[in-house]
Amino acid sequence: MMDPMDFSTGTTNPETFPIEELAEAAACAVREHGVELNTYPGNLGHEGLRKLMAKRELDREGVAMNPERMMLTNGSMQAVTLVAEALCQGRDDVVVMEEYSYAGTIDAYNSLGIDMVGVPVDDQGMKVEALASILTRLDKEDRPPRFIYTLPTYQNPTGAVMPLERRIELLKLAREHDCIVVEDNCYGDVHFEASPKPPALYTLDDGPNQIYMCSLSKIFAPGVRLGYLTASSDELFDQILARRHDAGSNTLAAAITARYLEDNLWEHCERANVGLKEKRDAMLDALEAEMGNLCSWSHPPGGLFIWVQVPDGVDLLRLEALAAEREVSFAHGWEFHIHGAEGPFIRLAFGWASVADIHEGIARLAHCIKQAPA
Amino acid sequence: MMDPMDFSTGTTNPETFPIEELAEAAACAVREHGVELNTYPGNLGHEGLRKLMAKRELDREGVAMNPERMMLTNGSMQAVTLVAEALCQGRDDVVVMEEYSYAGTIDAYNSLGIDMVGVPVDDQGMKVEALASILTRLDKEDRPPRFIYTLPTYQNPTGAVMPLERRIELLKLAREHDCIVVEDNCYGDVHFEASPKPPALYTLDDGPNQIYMCSLSKIFAPGVRLGYLTASSDELFDQILARRHDAGSNTLAAAITARYLEDNLWEHCERANVGLKEKRDAMLDALEAEMGNLCSWSHPPGGLFIWVQVPDGVDLLRLEALAAEREVSFAHGWEFHIHGAEGPFIRLAFGWASVADIHEGIARLAHCIKQAPA
Repeated sequence: MMDPMDFSTGTTNPETFPIEELAEAAACAVREHGVELNTYPGNLGHEGLRKLMAKRELDREGVAMNPERMMLTNGSMQAVTLVAEALCQGRDDVVVMEEYSYAGTIDAYNSLGIDMVGVPVDDQGMKVEALASILTRLDKEDRPPRFIYTLPTYQNPTGAVMPLERRIELLKLAREHDCIVVEDNCYGDVHFEASPKPPALYTLDDGPNQIYMCSLSKIFAPGVRLGYLTASSDELFDQILARRHDAGSNTLAAAITARYLEDNLWEHCERANVGLKEKRDAMLDALEAEMGNLCSWSHPPGGLFIWVQVPDGVDLLRLEALAAEREVSFAHGWEFHIHGAEGPFIRLAFGWASVADIHEGIARLAHCIKQAPA
Repeated sequence: MMDPMDFSTGTTNPETFPIEELAEAAACAVREHGVELNTYPGNLGHEGLRKLMAKRELDREGVAMNPERMMLTNGSMQAVTLVAEALCQGRDDVVVMEEYSYAGTIDAYNSLGIDMVGVPVDDQGMKVEALASILTRLDKEDRPPRFIYTLPTYQNPTGAVMPLERRIELLKLAREHDCIVVEDNCYGDVHFEASPKPPALYTLDDGPNQIYMCSLSKIFAPGVRLGYLTASSDELFDQILARRHDAGSNTLAAAITARYLEDNLWEHCERANVGLKEKRDAMLDALEAEMGNLCSWSHPPGGLFIWVQVPDGVDLLRLEALAAEREVSFAHGWEFHIHGAEGPFIRLAFGWASVADIHEGIARLAHCIKQAPA
């Protein structure tokens, strides 16, 4: 079990987790499915959850998704890995992505020998003018990327949301270079503000080169280990499915999750987001109170993280040790850099700790930052 | 949902599936784990189920297994794939295995570009004298295998059990050739006879080159998608774990399964096996009554399948079509041959159909076989 002031991992809010409702759904789902649990789910996984997730996408994006061209995955990380395995034929295949990205993706790509080419990011996500030069350069070098991997909404770790204009420009560049786009929308429903989000990339392009992945880990619970993937053409989808050899996703977990969410999807998201907004605000307030003159940080409208720039000269390993003595943990910025480059950044996750612990933990961390310069 | 006379898929017996007990365990597990479901399980997966599976192995094999060197997997198929991904560096890597083997493994190895070298089998499994020549030849050709993959107990599809002497000889050959042995024991507890099984390979060798995988799909339910893997050295285990990027197995399914099985493991196995034995016997009786002068078949002491040799000249595609008209299905022998070689074999699974449907289905199938010669 995690420590109270664990700001290191992107977990959901335990305070809004519907234990009793889920317990009832679990018993119902087992009784309803019964002997279906004695069969294999097929490579696409539990049909009921696929249909529900298609409805989730339709409600959020206003665009129909075909549940027969959707596969459930073991969290979106299985989707991330599977896409890379299916589309990268050999070592040193190039993938273009945000220079700062999800550490799990970076680890997987490293393990597969992928040559990650980073695009600089700002508070609006991937800089598309830089993307344009990179794609042109790679074409000239005869190293066209297998795909562009992007987290356009509540980007991990920076929290950035890519505005509509950039999305359109990114898709235009991808079309010009005949490049597949892999959109990781795992934070898709974790949003706190009334203003609408820009539409998902897959809704903005009717070509055959879009891959879309989403997750229930960030809005429901990582422990259900459920994500999903779709693609904009059967050919691309089948290519990914053909690389899958685990005989399908977990029917038991999918049936239970579908049973709970089918009556509660948006109520659940609303409740989860109200709780997370409170925690995000608490962390922003605590940062302002404790580190106002010391650090700068992102103000994300969604997601689970705040990206903090610490003063130059702070030794992050020393900071980690000092914080650990005070039972506070965070994630190092270099874990999210595609080449592990050091920089004056740390990532703080606000989903797990209570509001009181967030205030206390940030105060302790501020104290440590003041002590940490080498 | 499967047809009543589906003899094609290796599913467990729906009649002994403990729906009500599992429903209660599901509700309990969610209440007991609660907010732990909001955290990631880690790459090894749910500790409670790992400890229970270590106890399962200790009870069955009399040898302690370290749950800290055990990872839960999405069925044993994730284990099969992961081992191949971790140990095979490039295309055309050689793996030595039974010439007839599990179709899922063959598909995965084909997809990974593995060069499968087959060892002939008889009713005692892999012929070890043939294995000896193959290993020597591969060494001479400078193509040493990455590993030997074997299903020594209730081999799929033949049902063979490798006797102790052959196991010892196989391990001796592997040691001489410094070759890793991958033991797939997914049918480990599906046994019907009073006589003890030979010990698992991993208990017979104290070297660092043993990989062992097992499953709950064959004795509990495929829909829980839970298997596990261990290795006889940290180095080998860590090499496999490093190739895994799905952020761990399903906590929800593992917690529920552990909650049910912790009080019921061997009672459950006993009940499941009594039911399966009845079905195996019904199928053997029906085969004797309907095909006594027509075919020959295996008499497996465990597992889920009977391997049937049909008369020469039977056109298997025509047989499949005729059987489908009568709502009977089976698996073609060539699906289980590493190179898809045709032969006069079909595989019949007896777990799913009722005893009455087994009798009726085998009678219909016998009728079709008589009609099927080209």
